[in-house]
Amino acid sequence: MDGRVLVPWEQNRENAPAALTVEVYDGQGEPPADVLDDVVFYVVPYGRVQRVGLMRRMPRLRAVQLLTAGYEHVLADLPRGVRLYNGRGLHDASTAEHAVALILAAQRDLPRWAADQQKHVWNPHYTRSLADCRVLIVGYGSIGAAIEARLLPFEATVLRLARRARPASGVYGIEHLHQLLPDTDVVVVATPHTPETEGLIGGTELAALPDGALVVNVGRGPVVDTAALLAEKGRVRAALDVTDPEPLPPGHPLWGAPGVYLTPHVAGGAAAFYPRARRFVDEQLRRWAAGEPLANRISLDES
Amino acid sequence: MDGRVLVPWEQNRENAPAALTVEVYDGQGEPPADVLDDVVFYVVPYGRVQRVGLMRRMPRLRAVQLLTAGYEHVLADLPRGVRLYNGRGLHDASTAEHAVALILAAQRDLPRWAADQQKHVWNPHYTRSLADCRVLIVGYGSIGAAIEARLLPFEATVLRLARRARPASGVYGIEHLHQLLPDTDVVVVATPHTPETEGLIGGTELAALPDGALVVNVGRGPVVDTAALLAEKGRVRAALDVTDPEPLPPGHPLWGAPGVYLTPHVAGGAAAFYPRARRFVDEQLRRWAAGEPLANRISLDES
Ligand SMILES: NC(=O)c1ccc[n+]([C@@H]2O[C@H](COP(=O)([O-])OP(=O)(O)OC[C@H]3O[C@@H](n4cnc5c(N)ncnc54)[C@H](OP(=O)(O)O)[C@@H]3O)[C@@H](O)[C@H]2O)c1
Ligand SMILES: NC(=O)c1ccc[n+]([C@@H]2O[C@H](COP(=O)([O-])OP(=O)(O)OC[C@H]3O[C@@H](n4cnc5c(N)ncnc54)[C@H](OP(=O)(O)O)[C@@H]3O)[C@@H](O)[C@H]2O)c1
Repeated sequence: MDGRVLVPWEQNRENAPAALTVEVYDGQGEPPADVLDDVVFYVVPYGRVQRVGLMRRMPRLRAVQLLTAGYEHVLADLPRGVRLYNGRGLHDASTAEHAVALILAAQRDLPRWAADQQKHVWNPHYTRSLADCRVLIVGYGSIGAAIEARLLPFEATVLRLARRARPASGVYGIEHLHQLLPDTDVVVVATPHTPETEGLIGGTELAALPDGALVVNVGRGPVVDTAALLAEKGRVRAALDVTDPEPLPPGHPLWGAPGVYLTPHVAGGAAAFYPRARRFVDEQLRRWAAGEPLANRISLDES
Repeated sequence: MDGRVLVPWEQNRENAPAALTVEVYDGQGEPPADVLDDVVFYVVPYGRVQRVGLMRRMPRLRAVQLLTAGYEHVLADLPRGVRLYNGRGLHDASTAEHAVALILAAQRDLPRWAADQQKHVWNPHYTRSLADCRVLIVGYGSIGAAIEARLLPFEATVLRLARRARPASGVYGIEHLHQLLPDTDVVVVATPHTPETEGLIGGTELAALPDGALVVNVGRGPVVDTAALLAEKGRVRAALDVTDPEPLPPGHPLWGAPGVYLTPHVAGGAAAFYPRARRFVDEQLRRWAAGEPLANRISLDES
């Protein structure tokens, strides 16, 4: 088949249909000029955002595959007529798992036990549970649905909320947010950062939550208003994988805020991601060789 | 109906069938002598083990309900002919939830992030996942099955092991333990402490596990051999809710052992327990009033 395919992992070359000319490019250094000249399908190596610019030096390029869900950062470099595909779904298992880890850690006081362990203190006490909680997922998309699937066997009640209501699937629209908050024990934020979601969980929303409620954020930091959260002074608890600002600078009040637990944006990038991403690239190559439409195409407005 | 019933919670009195004479006894102080004289059914208050001795001063007693799964500690005081019922199942939600919390915390490095937070350090790194792990549940009983139910949506493979193989239900017998360990990423111990389970996970078993494997114990401390675990020096990780000895004294090497996370026997006693226990007592009273056999009867050898 005409032209070369650049893939990030050796496994993808091994599993590729025989008709394809496949080269491994893991983002270290640059591919030689004769390779760049011949690339028709480029899978951008994971964690190498700076390598998207190579697209401009691939004259025969027809398709670009990202391994992230976000794609806004590549649009400026994307040559006209090149199709773009994203990695929607590849971080679901990893991110959803981390969201549940944060909920359980907060409900079962794990940070407290970790601190007690450091002090050699054995001081059991009664904790909250996840069971019987009402959990509201704000951003019931790909990751939100994966979080729900993991929560259901814990005997919790899960409520779904997205931009637009989908009554047939039991999904509330964003206009129901304020009505749902007073009965919510755990809010899980899993939306992207957009002008509409910035500060979505702010002072009014936090004030509407009952005492001791928990806000978990695995979406993007600015969706939860940091100043408003600090103003709660621990009345509402939080477990945040993403923060605003990010990275959080030393000395920032969020580090030591009562009832706030932090992880440094590690939800998506765990072991679960890699086998799923490699299998996805294998399947995209199979589709490419068969002339089938690839999955996860981003529709671009090329007016 | 003849005789009185002693229950631990006001809710049980409110919900009791009208035919019963029900009194609330929460374990504070002692019931008056005329009440003791008349009790036919005694629900021992939770966390008040010392109150089981009251059985001896209840001449009309016919049945005793415990809210714990263990019952060995009451046998010495149990008058002949009195039926005994335990709380099997009441701690399943709480204990299983804690087991999953420990697995996720260990796989996703939560204790490390908690320590980094104390130091105001934002230092993301790649972590393990629960997804794709092979999890072996040693003790596939009431709690073991509840742990499995919670693990399945995490895209992990769960293997079940009990005393006796139950091939029709996919449960391995204990004789398969050594054969399964080399392919196991996470061992979850959920057996009682018996002569047979003491040291069940010892030096040989730990040595059979791959590097970086995780041992979680929510059963009883002595089932995992503490000295053998320490001898692994972090090659095998552990997350233990129960320890041997227990409580763990200050200065014990387990407190600071590499890759060992501890919680102070708090798996069973969380919020989830109480509503389940109250509902269970309500239902036992309904059965009692209707003359139906109660649930969870312990068969006693009264030879
Ligand atoms: N912490 C991490 O490491 C990590 C890893 C991966 C991803 N993420 C974040 O997670 C986000 C979600 O990823 P995904 O794959 O699940 O995306 P997705 O499938 O597009 O889902 C996004 C969801 O957010 C909802 N949403 C968008 N704007 C909203 C608004 N104004 N109000 C209420 N809901 C709104 C969408 O509603 P509709 O369904 O109505 O459109 C959709 O349900 C990503 O954008 C990324 O920021 C974080
Ligand atoms: N950490 C906590 O706070 C907490 C809270 C509650 C309970 N627990 C502990 O959890 C234990 C289990 O409770 P449960 O309600 O699940 O009890 P269960 O329903 O009786 O289950 C016990 C399981 O252990 C298995 N087992 C017993 N001896 C064994 C052996 N020698 N080798 C392999 N498997 C063996 C049994 O096998 P068979 O099915 O073949 O008999 C059964 O599957 C309790 O005994 C208690 O010690 C801890």
